[in-house]
Amino acid sequence: MDISDKVINRLTLYHCIFTDYLDKDIEFISSPQIANLLKIDDSQVRKDLKYLNNAGKCRVGYKVNDLKESIEKTLGFQNTKDTFIVGAGNLGLALTKYDDFASYGLNILALFDNDSLKVGMSINDKTVFHISKLPDLAKRLNVEMAILTVPRKYAQEVTDFLVNSGIKHIWNFAPSILKVPENVKVWNENLMGNCLQFTARNKKEDNK
Amino acid sequence: MDISDKVINRLTLYHCIFTDYLDKDIEFISSPQIANLLKIDDSQVRKDLKYLNNAGKCRVGYKVNDLKESIEKTLGFQNTKDTFIVGAGNLGLALTKYDDFASYGLNILALFDNDSLKVGMSINDKTVFHISKLPDLAKRLNVEMAILTVPRKYAQEVTDFLVNSGIKHIWNFAPSILKVPENVKVWNENLMGNCLQFTARNKKEDNK
Repeated sequence: MDISDKVINRLTLYHCIFTDYLDKDIEFISSPQIANLLKIDDSQVRKDLKYLNNAGKCRVGYKVNDLKESIEKTLGFQNTKDTFIVGAGNLGLALTKYDDFASYGLNILALFDNDSLKVGMSINDKTVFHISKLPDLAKRLNVEMAILTVPRKYAQEVTDFLVNSGIKHIWNFAPSILKVPENVKVWNENLMGNCLQFTARNKKEDNK
Repeated sequence: MDISDKVINRLTLYHCIFTDYLDKDIEFISSPQIANLLKIDDSQVRKDLKYLNNAGKCRVGYKVNDLKESIEKTLGFQNTKDTFIVGAGNLGLALTKYDDFASYGLNILALFDNDSLKVGMSINDKTVFHISKLPDLAKRLNVEMAILTVPRKYAQEVTDFLVNSGIKHIWNFAPSILKVPENVKVWNENLMGNCLQFTARNKKEDNK
């Protein structure tokens, strides 16, 4: 089934809600409750939940656990992919500590940096290696994905190095557009764009 | 002019490209060059640039500097908004170091944490205050925006505190859906959703 980015995005937000509900031992949820929490339209929620083949629907609402498992199955949380984090600065460390990535199918194997002071450090049971070790480790561990968290001015240089090391998929957190060959895919996080949408939204509100 | 989130997002990516070009002293750019870097359609780029009223268009392409300034004007980069970062962990520190936020209209005034070991630290000329100081400082500095970078389990509790302190806009990096009153707006960063789109995209490629 082909699910659009927008729907994937909302299903992930629903999944966050279900996780919170199960933490609080709440067994059932209704679509208006979900809609209300996200301040979106109820009909939108019901439409999205149809991708889950009405999993868990009953008279008193939806069974939270069934919906949660159905989202995990539909979006393929269990098909784990291995990745490296390149750049062991604050952002790289923050993402390494984001345990949730693992439950969403992304398994961080190791970090890389060119700062010898950081090499050998261990964060969340993951080791920081010198960047020079990456080509060999990528090959031996068969890793084709990397999360790029280096400063903007090094982003292209490091990308060229990753591409030469056989990396095929890059999740780019640097505010720079990377030049890559046709067979390499880049997914730009674009924090700046989100920053603008955040501030722009607030300006719109102010004008009301 | 009302510009959709998707267009804002792309204009910000174009802005990244223009910044890189100017760093390298390249004066002109064509829409196919932009399209090629982002692996999107040339017609899409030309359509987006129309929002800038054909700024800088000439025979040899577009003047990079004119386009860049036009994006800044159109998206209101110069209307600076003050914000606090709440949670001085790795993610909070990473965002504090993201100097680019300032040029995109977001001015980080200070950080807050409940860890006394972090209080008094200075990052990028910004000080970490104890969270108990937030209500007073928000009022005196007239700050209504906060970036939330605390762990998931504290997210709701801290949000309630922010709302009671007069915060009206929250950029939420915690993987949790926050309950807020009608007059408070939350913008969810949803790194988990992006993570899934990143891995899902790669799975699609693998199936080709």
